[in-house]
Amino acid sequence: MSANSSVRSPLVECVPNFSEGRDAAKIDAIARAIAQAGGAVLDRTLDADHNRAVITFVAAPEAIGEAAFRAVQTAAGLIDLRHHSGVHPRIGAADVVPFVPLGGVTMEDCVRIAETTGSRIASELGIPVYLYDRAARRPQCRNLADIRRGQFEGLLEAVVTDPARHPDFGERLHPTAGATAVGARKILIAFNVNLNSPDLAAARAIARAVRFSSGGLPHVKAMGVLLGSRNLAQVSMNLTDFEATPLHVAFEAVRAEADKLGVRILQTEIVGLAPRQAVELAAAQYLKVANLGVLETKIDLL
Amino acid sequence: MSANSSVRSPLVECVPNFSEGRDAAKIDAIARAIAQAGGAVLDRTLDADHNRAVITFVAAPEAIGEAAFRAVQTAAGLIDLRHHSGVHPRIGAADVVPFVPLGGVTMEDCVRIAETTGSRIASELGIPVYLYDRAARRPQCRNLADIRRGQFEGLLEAVVTDPARHPDFGERLHPTAGATAVGARKILIAFNVNLNSPDLAAARAIARAVRFSSGGLPHVKAMGVLLGSRNLAQVSMNLTDFEATPLHVAFEAVRAEADKLGVRILQTEIVGLAPRQAVELAAAQYLKVANLGVLETKIDLL
Repeated sequence: MSANSSVRSPLVECVPNFSEGRDAAKIDAIARAIAQAGGAVLDRTLDADHNRAVITFVAAPEAIGEAAFRAVQTAAGLIDLRHHSGVHPRIGAADVVPFVPLGGVTMEDCVRIAETTGSRIASELGIPVYLYDRAARRPQCRNLADIRRGQFEGLLEAVVTDPARHPDFGERLHPTAGATAVGARKILIAFNVNLNSPDLAAARAIARAVRFSSGGLPHVKAMGVLLGSRNLAQVSMNLTDFEATPLHVAFEAVRAEADKLGVRILQTEIVGLAPRQAVELAAAQYLKVANLGVLETKIDLL
Repeated sequence: MSANSSVRSPLVECVPNFSEGRDAAKIDAIARAIAQAGGAVLDRTLDADHNRAVITFVAAPEAIGEAAFRAVQTAAGLIDLRHHSGVHPRIGAADVVPFVPLGGVTMEDCVRIAETTGSRIASELGIPVYLYDRAARRPQCRNLADIRRGQFEGLLEAVVTDPARHPDFGERLHPTAGATAVGARKILIAFNVNLNSPDLAAARAIARAVRFSSGGLPHVKAMGVLLGSRNLAQVSMNLTDFEATPLHVAFEAVRAEADKLGVRILQTEIVGLAPRQAVELAAAQYLKVANLGVLETKIDLL
């Protein structure tokens, strides 16, 4: 099914990222809080080196904001950013909370949910909120990378000294939970490609070559990181428009750059879940199928 | 979704093959007969060189037999095998009628449907029926290739002279509609790989190398044919257990053999529909994803 065809009742996806990738019990507690508030938890992905977890859940538009709020509240009670380190940049215990429209919901609905939820996070939890991506009110807040510049440690001061970095809701950073970026966006694929080598310079060179901001593929963000626990380098990507730049295009671009540098792709990871259409596009491409029809998809459409 | 997870009410798939791949109006008429009898037509695929069409439809177990019967009846009224030629072997106007259990239905249910429908086709339409695959009552009827030996023209006589080739229902062949193989089976993928060359010998050599009967891949049947209208050779395969021998394994085996012979894969075709699991397996394999979770699949499971 596509998100539009078989999601029968209005549904919003929320994919919050938390700055804890090692203590599964804490992520379990956050997932329980989401479920208790009526969110249906579909996936949780933890990474020890990123020291970060991603929970994917869905709920009706009326319920999703409360479930996200409970998740942020629980994370703030369990995660202390003063004692957090990992290879992924972050500003908060609940670092980022995006709302994604699935069937029967518009982007504008998700922007309103982001605004309402963000306002509550600031006023009730004392955690300042930046509205980002489609919910951004200022150009400097459209991109997460700009919001995260300097990370938690740098933002503690910048939020005081730089008016451009003032949050949309709230004032000073929460002393242990930092700040949270709350937004609305299209479906995104978080796609990590692990190399067969700890060559961080190679991963960074590949990231530079494939990401749009340095002349690479449209709708691709990328950074090179070292996964210490596995002693290998990773190209960590976000594909923000998988119809324009599909999974397999990003994969092959990384493979081509890796070839040039004499390293190889060991394995990849989808952080969270992949949209079905991206999976079908990749299969059709690699198998050279001109007319890929899928049985269950046709049945779903009945 | 898997066939088991999201087909909520009992459902049978039927994938009849007809000896007409050029006159779309005749296949339309057959599809209409199926729909009028309550079958939901999901796909129709015609091929001019095979001179064959495949219709994929589903219905509740109580309705599927009647819809299949109407399809065979309509085909018998429109297709005259005495004036039919194509690269695919065939014995009947409605050549083969398999029933496939989806959710909430067992293989035994499908065997009973095949028996009841086959009996009606013989008694009401005068078309003899061979029960095949899981519905076969005799070892020589398990494989379609054995039933089709000599094709329509050869079977006209063999059915009289060779007791082993007597049909399960009926007697002599129908003068214009031949005979029909009616069976029950697991999901099958009909997968055709087109080469960039009209080298029929190469297609046949590849088919020999990859099919199980001559020492190749388990659960793969294959033949090499020439597509005259496109002036290229094709390896035409049936994958009868895509979990044991996945799509991408068959594809790569063909590619490896083609490489040896200096020919290349131009494009492939799935005749009918592919099961979702086969598509996801292929994508995960090519993208080297260890943990492929699909958003809509998780939502379907809620």
